[in-house]
Order: sequence, then C-alpha cells, then structure tokens
Amino acid sequence: MKEAHPFAQRVNVAVSGGDGYPIFVGPGSLEHLADLLSRYAPAFRYAVIADARVADLHRAEIEKALGGLAAEVSWFTFPPGEAEKTRDQWARLTDALLDRGLGRDSCVLAVGGGVAGDLAGFVAATYLRGIPVVQIPTSLVAMIDSSVGGKTGVDTRHGKNLVGAFHPPAMVLIDPRLARTLPRIERAQGLAEAIKHGAILDRPYLEALEHAAPGLLAGDEMATTACVVGSVRHKAAVVQEDEREGGIRKILNFGHTLGHAIEQLSGYAVPHGLAVAWGMVLEARVGERLGVTEPGTAAMLARILRLFELDWERVPRFAPDALVAATRTDKKAREGAVHYVLLRKLGVVARDPDWSRPVPVAVVLDVLQSLDGEA
Amino acid sequence: MKEAHPFAQRVNVAVSGGDGYPIFVGPGSLEHLADLLSRYAPAFRYAVIADARVADLHRAEIEKALGGLAAEVSWFTFPPGEAEKTRDQWARLTDALLDRGLGRDSCVLAVGGGVAGDLAGFVAATYLRGIPVVQIPTSLVAMIDSSVGGKTGVDTRHGKNLVGAFHPPAMVLIDPRLARTLPRIERAQGLAEAIKHGAILDRPYLEALEHAAPGLLAGDEMATTACVVGSVRHKAAVVQEDEREGGIRKILNFGHTLGHAIEQLSGYAVPHGLAVAWGMVLEARVGERLGVTEPGTAAMLARILRLFELDWERVPRFAPDALVAATRTDKKAREGAVHYVLLRKLGVVARDPDWSRPVPVAVVLDVLQSLDGEA
Repeated sequence: MKEAHPFAQRVNVAVSGGDGYPIFVGPGSLEHLADLLSRYAPAFRYAVIADARVADLHRAEIEKALGGLAAEVSWFTFPPGEAEKTRDQWARLTDALLDRGLGRDSCVLAVGGGVAGDLAGFVAATYLRGIPVVQIPTSLVAMIDSSVGGKTGVDTRHGKNLVGAFHPPAMVLIDPRLARTLPRIERAQGLAEAIKHGAILDRPYLEALEHAAPGLLAGDEMATTACVVGSVRHKAAVVQEDEREGGIRKILNFGHTLGHAIEQLSGYAVPHGLAVAWGMVLEARVGERLGVTEPGTAAMLARILRLFELDWERVPRFAPDALVAATRTDKKAREGAVHYVLLRKLGVVARDPDWSRPVPVAVVLDVLQSLDGEA
Repeated sequence: MKEAHPFAQRVNVAVSGGDGYPIFVGPGSLEHLADLLSRYAPAFRYAVIADARVADLHRAEIEKALGGLAAEVSWFTFPPGEAEKTRDQWARLTDALLDRGLGRDSCVLAVGGGVAGDLAGFVAATYLRGIPVVQIPTSLVAMIDSSVGGKTGVDTRHGKNLVGAFHPPAMVLIDPRLARTLPRIERAQGLAEAIKHGAILDRPYLEALEHAAPGLLAGDEMATTACVVGSVRHKAAVVQEDEREGGIRKILNFGHTLGHAIEQLSGYAVPHGLAVAWGMVLEARVGERLGVTEPGTAAMLARILRLFELDWERVPRFAPDALVAATRTDKKAREGAVHYVLLRKLGVVARDPDWSRPVPVAVVLDVLQSLDGEA
C-alpha cells in the first residue's frame, strides 16, 4: 500500500511460485478501491457478484468507490444464504456473465460473506478456464478467514465445499467498516475462526481476543481491525507455506471435521461459526481422550466461546453415530479413515505425524456419547 | 521410462513451476500402466471415466493392464458424444464419485477421446478442489492434441469449453494400439490437429505428414506412432513455455476461431477436426488478405487437407455474419475485438504483435463472402 494510505496494513501472500497477492486491511480502505484495482487487477470489464442483501446494503458505496475506473462495471446478484452455494447458482451466474459477453480480460469482484466469496471465486476459477477474482469481504468470517487463501467452491447434497478449485485472488481488500451493519450474532460467528487461529497457533492472540470480546461483539472499529489484521497474518503465513493443503494448511481444519458434520446434519441451520466452535471443543476433547491434548483444554475453549455468546445450548443434539457417519464424506478422509487435527495445548497444534491423524471411530463415539454430561 | 520399455518415447512437460508430468508414447505401452501409475500417480482408489462405447471396446484390456495394482478401481461411464460435455454430465459424474465415497487420495483415469479427457479432467480439477488425473487417450485427436496441455472443461449453450480449468495431468499414457479400432473418418479428424502443428511450427513435419497420409488414414502403427510423437513434442514444447495461454500458447488456436464458430453454428454436427481444418484455410486466407500470410498458403493447406479426406464439401455453408457473430463469444475475444492467430507462411506463425491480433470484421466478412467462389 502506498504511503498515502497510512491507516492500512498490507499483508502479502506469496503463493503458486509467483509474486503472490496483496491483502489490504484498514477502515476506509474501500475509498482506494479504483486505484488499487487499476494497479493489482486491471481489467477491461468488472463483474461484481454479491447476494441481493449485500447489494442492497453496499452497492451505493461500492459504486462510488469504483467511480474512478474507466472500465465497465456490471452487477450480478443471487439470493442470500448458504443454500445458494450450489452448482446451479454457479451455472446461473456463469451464464449471466456469458450473456453479457464478458471475455478473458474481465475480473470478478466477490463482494460479501463466505458464500459470495466461495461462489463468485468458483465462477471466476472456471469462467473461460479462469479469470482473476478480487475478494472484498463484508462479513467478519470472510474478513477473518475465507477471503484469504484461494479456496473456492460450492456445496452438494454430500457435504460442504466438495466441488471447487484453488483460485488465489488477485487482491483482497478488507474494509472493516463494511461490517458495521452486521448483527451481533453474525459477528460472533466470524470471531469463532479468529479463536481457532489463536487456539492452533498463538495463545497470546487468543487471550487478547478474550479481553476484547465485548468490543468485538459490539463492533468496535479498532478492536475489529486489530482482530482482522491478526487473523489475516496467521492465515496468510500458513497458506503461504502450503497453499494446496498438502501439509501444515490442514491445521486450519481444526474444529471443522465435527463442525462440518454438525452443519450438515442440521441441514445448514446451525451457522458455520457456531458449528466450528463446538467442533473445536469436541476435537479438543478427542485429543484429551487420546492423551495428545493437555487436560482442561476443551473446558478452557468452551469458556472462551461462551464469552463470545457461542453457546453450546444453541447447538441441536445429533445421534453420535450419525455425526461420525457424516464425517466420512469430509474431504479430509484418507484411505477410509477420518483424520483429525489435534491440539497439544491452547496455542499449539500437534505437529506429528503429519498435522493430522486418523482417530479410531470408538474414541470419537465415546466423546460424543459423554457429551451432554460434560458440556 | 525405464530401460525395460525401449519401444516407448518419453516426453516431459515441465509446467506450473513443478517437475512437470511425463508423457509415455508407444505401441504396447498400456501393458505398463499399473507400473507407471504406481510411480507417477499413486492413489488409494482409481476412478476410470469413459464413455459407454469406449468402455465396451477397451474395458477388458484396461482392466487387465490395471491388474497389478493393489488399489480399488471403479468405472464411471457416460453416453458418447460431444453433446454430453456439459455441466450436467460433469455434476452427474462428480456425484457418482461422491456416492462411491472417493476421497482426496483418489485419482481419475480419463480414458477416451477429447470429450472424455476434457470432461473427466474437469471432474478431477474440481473434485474436492482437485485430485490428480491421468490421461489415457483412445482417439487420434486426443493422442495428438487434447491429452497434453492440461486444458479441461465443458461446453455451454454459449459455446465450447467456456467453463473449465487448467489442470495438468499427473501423467499421459498414449498407446497408439488403442486407436486401432478407429474408423478412417475419425482418424482424419485427429490428423487435422497434427496438420495444424505442422502449419504453425514445422514445414518439414507437415510434408512428412503429407507423404504419410495413406498410411495414417489406414491406421498404420509405425506412421501413427511417429505422428503422435511428433505432435506431442510440438505441443509439449509450446505448453511448457506458456501453460496458461498468456502468450505463445495462443498459436495452438490457429484455425480454431472460425473453426469453433462453424462447429457452434452446426450444433456440433460438424466434427471438430473438419471444422478446424477449414478454420485454418479461412484464417490463412484472412492472413493473405491482410498481407501477413504468404500468398498461396491457404490453397496449399486446402490441398493437403483434401489428401486427408477433410473435404470442404462436407462443411455446411453458414451466413458470414452469423459466423462472425459466433466468434464473439470465443474465449479469445479481448476488449470487444476478436483476435486471430495468423501464419507468415506454412510452418511459421506470425509472432507480432503478441501471437495473435485483432482483425477488422470487414476483412473476415470479405473472406467468408468470397468463399464459395474460391474453395
């Protein structure tokens, strides 16, 4: 970021053997969108993809921010909700871009939460065999987590994100002010991923989040910016080391094996953040049961999550064997065994044998069966 | 290829900043499939994707060749024909793999012609965000052209290959004996791409093809192998220099701008090879009209194509303005202008300004309007 934007942080993610892509974070950074696009994602035409709700909320300010561009800008919207993250919606959006005659010299701007980022990212990844995408997250979960790292995709009836591609963005622009309209409960969903970053990599960061919980839930701009910068740095460092999830990137799946199973069994009625939150507690308990994770870790995590109003009482109960069955279609399954990322203790992930390990079904069932007595 | 396979040629394609992938070419190389897979594409499970006709013809010999593998092998078939290269068929195959519970430690074997390679390649590119694919072409067009280079994708109502991904194979195994059952007319279709390689890069190769035409059309094993090796070397050299078609790879699109338009307007009733053949003649004529291509080039190309029984009389006539309109949705369109790859002369492509150039619509219309008088 040039000196004229002293308020913003720049994080670089060097991936794919290339120069990588820049991530700009800062309140007010949206005002520099046209300038940054012309430098980092120049195109003949821009296709803004957003859900209808995000378009209602932010279209005016984004069009204002794009005002300085000579290029043509078109908007493509879809109905809000995870239920729209499908191959059908992807095909519909792709056809809309083709109808408009967008060529390879076009660029997609993915504006919105995790769904828009994943869906628009997959449209860009497969449009004419791939055109650039710029991620402009508006939800906290997208700012903290999903806009960085290049994962794109859609859900199928078999599970989440089972169809997709790695398609690193040309640039990520994170303006925490775009999240100012978020309801408190959605903020908490996003913060679950920040807590995950602290749990696997950085206990002091986890403690800082804990202290900042009231401000973060209330939408305090400084606290939010600090949290986004902290999480983006952690995520970028991991992705930079292992873009394709052959090794260390797996640790970002902590909480996601059982978390995805909870989401799937609920028909996606349980929000992602809440599902991952309790996925983390359950997987910490699995680690404790195996003697890998320091005793008391799951209880400490549970206490922190309650501070963020991610209450276990809001998660519906599912039959343990149904949950275990749902983990089998997870992408992390290998040679028939489901692999789990485990903690050594808060802030330290277990490295051996290879960032994740197969866990006997009996151990997982045992943890799930003793759940209500302990939670 | 180890010394035990002295009959086979090995070509290496170093792409994506990695070690690249090997291409094995040789009559009888299929017998070494299990051995080569365990070295270059080891997996827990293999998913063979083929159309029903190819499966009928080759399933027994491929299963025999896979006999030495400890891994589980499943077959997934689809109806033959370009009409099946759709998002719907891609989704159906993906769901079939998910139904079977195939994880990230699986590998797709794409067995068949260009349709199977593109479709199965796109399934692999997007399955769990990407699993390896091995290309095992059975048609001459796939052996000569489409199995090398990593392009995958499907057609939409807007045109061919408009949705897809670059997904380099883990390995390509080309056994010309798999093409022994091909009808003469399908052989000719594939040879059109070999003629293209000669036309853009290598006049002596073009002349060798011309002399070998009777043997190539009759399916002579030595002539076919020599042609496949020659074309694979040319294609691999181009792809290695420019995998993502930012520069020199564009030259492989010679004949394809108007060729795709012919295919599209015919509802894909005109076979790809025939369409490209006459796309080349027309584009050579465009180049002559612009003073870029040596006069007489189009006529020489037309003469060679007739030797291969790719007769102009078999191409239906379309209104010139409809053809020009159909080129607009082509991926090669840039900033509203359709770009053409032009020859300097036979064997030499025009390098300037950037391997392709915008051509005024009036010039293309003029060539198309004067067509029947000259062809």
